[in-house]
Amino acid sequence: MQQLSFQLFTHPFPLTFSVLRRQVLTFICYTALFLLTVLSLSVLCADEGMWLFESNSVTAQVKEKYGFNMTDDWMEHIFKSSTRFGRSGSASFVSPNGLIMTNHHVGAAQLQMHSTPENDMLKNGFYAKTLSDEIPCKGLECIVMDSVKDITDELEKITTGLQPEAAAKARREAISKIEQEEANKSNLHCEVVTLFQGGKYHLYRYKKYTDIRLVWAPEQDIAAFGGDPDNYEYPRYCVDCSFFRAYENDKPAQIQHYLKWATNGVKENELVFVSGFPGTTNRAFTRSHLEFQRDFYFPERLARLYRREVVYSAFAERSLENKRRIAHDLDAVKNYRKRAIGQLDALQTPSLWKSNEEAKESAHSRFHGDAMALPCFRLSEFYINYCYFETGEAFNSQTFRLARQLVRLALEKEKPNAERLREYRDGNIDSIKRSILNDSPIYEDVEILKLTDSLSMLFEYGNGGERQNPNSAKPIFPRNIEWSTMFSKNSPKELATKLVSGSKLRDVAERRKLLDGGFTAINASDDPMIKFVLQYDSLARKYRKLYEEQFEAPMTEIYANLAKKRFQKYGDKIYPDATFTLRISFGVVKGYEEAGKYIKPVTNIAGMFDRAESMKFKEPFNLPQSWLDNKNKLDPKTRFNLVTTNDIIGGNSGSPLINTKGEVVGLVFDGNIYSLSNNFIYTETQSRCVAVHVDVIIESLKKIYNAKRLIEELGIKN
Amino acid sequence: MQQLSFQLFTHPFPLTFSVLRRQVLTFICYTALFLLTVLSLSVLCADEGMWLFESNSVTAQVKEKYGFNMTDDWMEHIFKSSTRFGRSGSASFVSPNGLIMTNHHVGAAQLQMHSTPENDMLKNGFYAKTLSDEIPCKGLECIVMDSVKDITDELEKITTGLQPEAAAKARREAISKIEQEEANKSNLHCEVVTLFQGGKYHLYRYKKYTDIRLVWAPEQDIAAFGGDPDNYEYPRYCVDCSFFRAYENDKPAQIQHYLKWATNGVKENELVFVSGFPGTTNRAFTRSHLEFQRDFYFPERLARLYRREVVYSAFAERSLENKRRIAHDLDAVKNYRKRAIGQLDALQTPSLWKSNEEAKESAHSRFHGDAMALPCFRLSEFYINYCYFETGEAFNSQTFRLARQLVRLALEKEKPNAERLREYRDGNIDSIKRSILNDSPIYEDVEILKLTDSLSMLFEYGNGGERQNPNSAKPIFPRNIEWSTMFSKNSPKELATKLVSGSKLRDVAERRKLLDGGFTAINASDDPMIKFVLQYDSLARKYRKLYEEQFEAPMTEIYANLAKKRFQKYGDKIYPDATFTLRISFGVVKGYEEAGKYIKPVTNIAGMFDRAESMKFKEPFNLPQSWLDNKNKLDPKTRFNLVTTNDIIGGNSGSPLINTKGEVVGLVFDGNIYSLSNNFIYTETQSRCVAVHVDVIIESLKKIYNAKRLIEELGIKN
Repeated sequence: MQQLSFQLFTHPFPLTFSVLRRQVLTFICYTALFLLTVLSLSVLCADEGMWLFESNSVTAQVKEKYGFNMTDDWMEHIFKSSTRFGRSGSASFVSPNGLIMTNHHVGAAQLQMHSTPENDMLKNGFYAKTLSDEIPCKGLECIVMDSVKDITDELEKITTGLQPEAAAKARREAISKIEQEEANKSNLHCEVVTLFQGGKYHLYRYKKYTDIRLVWAPEQDIAAFGGDPDNYEYPRYCVDCSFFRAYENDKPAQIQHYLKWATNGVKENELVFVSGFPGTTNRAFTRSHLEFQRDFYFPERLARLYRREVVYSAFAERSLENKRRIAHDLDAVKNYRKRAIGQLDALQTPSLWKSNEEAKESAHSRFHGDAMALPCFRLSEFYINYCYFETGEAFNSQTFRLARQLVRLALEKEKPNAERLREYRDGNIDSIKRSILNDSPIYEDVEILKLTDSLSMLFEYGNGGERQNPNSAKPIFPRNIEWSTMFSKNSPKELATKLVSGSKLRDVAERRKLLDGGFTAINASDDPMIKFVLQYDSLARKYRKLYEEQFEAPMTEIYANLAKKRFQKYGDKIYPDATFTLRISFGVVKGYEEAGKYIKPVTNIAGMFDRAESMKFKEPFNLPQSWLDNKNKLDPKTRFNLVTTNDIIGGNSGSPLINTKGEVVGLVFDGNIYSLSNNFIYTETQSRCVAVHVDVIIESLKKIYNAKRLIEELGIKN
Repeated sequence: MQQLSFQLFTHPFPLTFSVLRRQVLTFICYTALFLLTVLSLSVLCADEGMWLFESNSVTAQVKEKYGFNMTDDWMEHIFKSSTRFGRSGSASFVSPNGLIMTNHHVGAAQLQMHSTPENDMLKNGFYAKTLSDEIPCKGLECIVMDSVKDITDELEKITTGLQPEAAAKARREAISKIEQEEANKSNLHCEVVTLFQGGKYHLYRYKKYTDIRLVWAPEQDIAAFGGDPDNYEYPRYCVDCSFFRAYENDKPAQIQHYLKWATNGVKENELVFVSGFPGTTNRAFTRSHLEFQRDFYFPERLARLYRREVVYSAFAERSLENKRRIAHDLDAVKNYRKRAIGQLDALQTPSLWKSNEEAKESAHSRFHGDAMALPCFRLSEFYINYCYFETGEAFNSQTFRLARQLVRLALEKEKPNAERLREYRDGNIDSIKRSILNDSPIYEDVEILKLTDSLSMLFEYGNGGERQNPNSAKPIFPRNIEWSTMFSKNSPKELATKLVSGSKLRDVAERRKLLDGGFTAINASDDPMIKFVLQYDSLARKYRKLYEEQFEAPMTEIYANLAKKRFQKYGDKIYPDATFTLRISFGVVKGYEEAGKYIKPVTNIAGMFDRAESMKFKEPFNLPQSWLDNKNKLDPKTRFNLVTTNDIIGGNSGSPLINTKGEVVGLVFDGNIYSLSNNFIYTETQSRCVAVHVDVIIESLKKIYNAKRLIEELGIKN
């Protein structure tokens, strides 16, 4: 049995999972006052928190609120049944033979990769009738947590006395070294994770499974039924589920900790847990940082997303081929836009800023005039330059991205490894090269469209430096002096057309030539996009340097200091912001009010057919033929999707929804529109986690997909 | 025979049409130098200009360039065959019995109005088999120009020595009086038109036809084939045509001047004329005013349109009922957006600013540091306040609009007529009341959607006054102090929901009650939207006053002065900006280059079927059943739509396209995307007028609609 090891503060000895939790409990007893912070404003009254498994606070709250005792064994079982799936999702083991359950949308890239012109697996779904039919997914990995070590003090020693920027550099280097050493020592995958904005640094050790095979996936049309229109909405009807299997030595991995399948599903008001890997939250943001997000970051981002969505949609509407070419870009923009509107709406809601009357006073005094106010204010004046030039938002195109990578790779490789831009250090070069040589088609018209729109946005921002303030000699926009000639001869559309149509970078052979030719080839190139990137590269680098030195580093430092103080005061009464590491959250199955109407927590198959019919089965409300053919076999009352009060965020996709017995009752795949505020603050009123109910998975496996082997493995009676 | 009367400058005697033109010619001879202005940069080399019929310059140019002599008789015939159709379009008489040809989209409101649940005339089209089947269109009017009088001097006497604002007021009052007096005297419809930005004021006298009946219209699906995706695009395939008839004394009006139908259509490179009522152009804008449009007006407007289009589209995608409810708003936004992108693209194109090398120097010196620079610079800092509060862009909803009208009508009626806001003076009150009592359905969800988005935009702009500049006590956005409490308790969505759901204004009976109750009822009302409007009305009025006093009045004055100088120098060598009065433009049938490809000028029926098929006949590329049923009867080579170099703009829709014989060869219904720059500048390279070719009208009247009576009346051989 693998033991969870953890070093708490300066204790030199490893602690088992249960010893650890007792230690924390003892520590917590010293903090006499239970002070609320914005981070845990409503800790006692709401189902808030993405808790570290070692936290005693979560067990205490669940005990007090729901009377359930999360024993050490129960916790360990859940902990070890959970796995991080690939680069973006969560999953769980659901059989002793390495069967893994995750979302369809988390596994979709694999389906796409294994599709052929004859068999579009996204469209048709997949079922391996026998073990030997399971499809190996090259490059896909799953990791399971083995142990954790606190290295905060170790890093602190290294950075003491250094200026923020130098400290950040020293810390980055030390972290790389520790990860490497620990990996060599343990033969495990090792990652150092920053918790509490630098208040804590933990070294996570993971067991890694590298032979993952595809077992079952339904058709995309039922997995993502309702598409973008129903994304983040509820009621919902998605079988967003797929099964994979971990192998070791070419045989199904033998797994000690896996989640059994609940036989009776889950009922309204029942206590449930989500164990998974939430990606990123920003709940420790100070008031002024939140204001920056509300008044600057999101409005700017949304303005960009709005125009892109309109421009892409208008292009798509002109021909079916256009629609096909822009589909992926358009879907992505729609998803980002919906998320950004939800988050901005949360930030514009006064009650969310003062959600707890009791905490109002303290929150106010803590956040008013906070240390972040000045950098945030200055950042709002600077950010667009960074974002347009260095992040490349003003040059939105594959052609620019490829040219930038080619140019920078050539320039950076001339330097010693340690002095290069992070993403061009030796460890990352292979992935940069893969990205450059990826031969997905690049369409000239789409490229011109995207680049024209983003260049036009840049023109609007800086108007080519032509306009003069008639009151003085000072130009109205002094910031653009360095690129004032960009539009002096060409309109955005003309420039985009020249840069894209004149470039040969759409041809992968041309890219390979420039890649192999290195610095000399880049310098000699007369490709207009390469020349364009070279012309503005020093400007982009200048903005990046300014950003890193004047904002990133000092802001990290401020947050680390705030976090240390907070951590010293509250210990594990507070949870760290999400960092794509394993967390547990608790909640209940519960409906909510929306526009004066009560939304019931659980949907059923009948509701799904009603929804499809109300939309005349038009895309994205069309159903796979298998569901239409077998409609009469299905029990219309079968529970389909459900909502719970669990505190989740992106990255939690694919997490199991677990009952008190430690059984799977559902599969988390989304949050409703109100849950988008979870980035900043959790509120129980309307924020909901959305999951697939196990019943619809069982019903469809039985009656539509005839997946007998899978049903038996899950231990479901046929 | 009606004579065109015109008073030139101070000549007291009326001039006939031909005398007038000779007078102008004489005057022109005095201007020795033919100097180019931006307004007529390329007058000699391009088919530019929306010319007054009395201009000698247009006849001279056509003579020189195309060798065609536009005789006085020819001009008069065209002039008197042209008519302004309703409130937004152009049209022409095409038979001696009062038959009028215009666009389907110009007459669409009439089709909608006369539809019943049993017969959707937009969908099914309409054909009156006999005279008695023709449908009277209540409220629809057509006007034909009778005569013109120059009243510039008369007005100048009145305003001499007054400050800009006082002058504007005196001018407005004098114009009202003149229009009234002239109408009483002549029994004609009289309108004073500002030409050359106030350089000239002309009194137009019109004969008015008030009994207009619907004769024929095709199905909307073929009239607007391609919908928004193909709007402003080419190649194109629309039968955007309908026929009406003017009646007098319940009998078809007997018309002396009407256009005959060309029997052989029109060929590539053939000389053609457009006679119609172009709405508005801004070609006299100075450089700094154009910069304001480019760097401020259009970016701000587009940002609003982008977000609305996205928000409306996302709402539409959620259900078919949503789609139906928002369809009209969404269509309008898409059209505005496409137009604004085209115009901004033109303004961002350097070559359009200096399209003629020769004129560069003079244009530059004339426009650099022009008198508009300061007001434009200050306007860019002020404009949003005016636009959000007074124009109401921040409160985008019918509920707000209705509450605003009810509140202002009540407040304004307490004042003497002359002191009221323009739109609430006695002459306008009936139309305000009609607008308030219009009982089109208003949907609560659509209202909340629209108001939420626009309030959120306001929040982004001013962020509720909460954020402080940490460098000083000064708030970052001092401008919003007066409404800083708007969002202190409610988010935009919460506020929108309260204002809309709590309001009874969606009920027309409630509106009538408040309308009848006047000032007392408004003041006593506890309707949340009425109270909201009252609360911010003085702020909105303040912005309006500032706008009118500090910008509108002085800018009008500056333009009037510039225009006077220019007019004195160039006389009728230049044409006035479009003002929805009758103009003539010349050009040829001609293709153009787009993205390196040559676009042929004329499409045909085969191309239309190809386009429909390439889009799988999906909306808006679906065809009416009549076209599908009769496809085999149609000659696939029949000419469908065509493009010409004529200089046109919105308002020209429905204008006849006329050959040198004075015959109809087409029907103008659109401009291509490049023609959108016509607002500011005309360039012949790509800007094209788009028209329906007469051939497709004839072919479909014959073979699809069996409109024998109509074909005979048009004098077409069957």
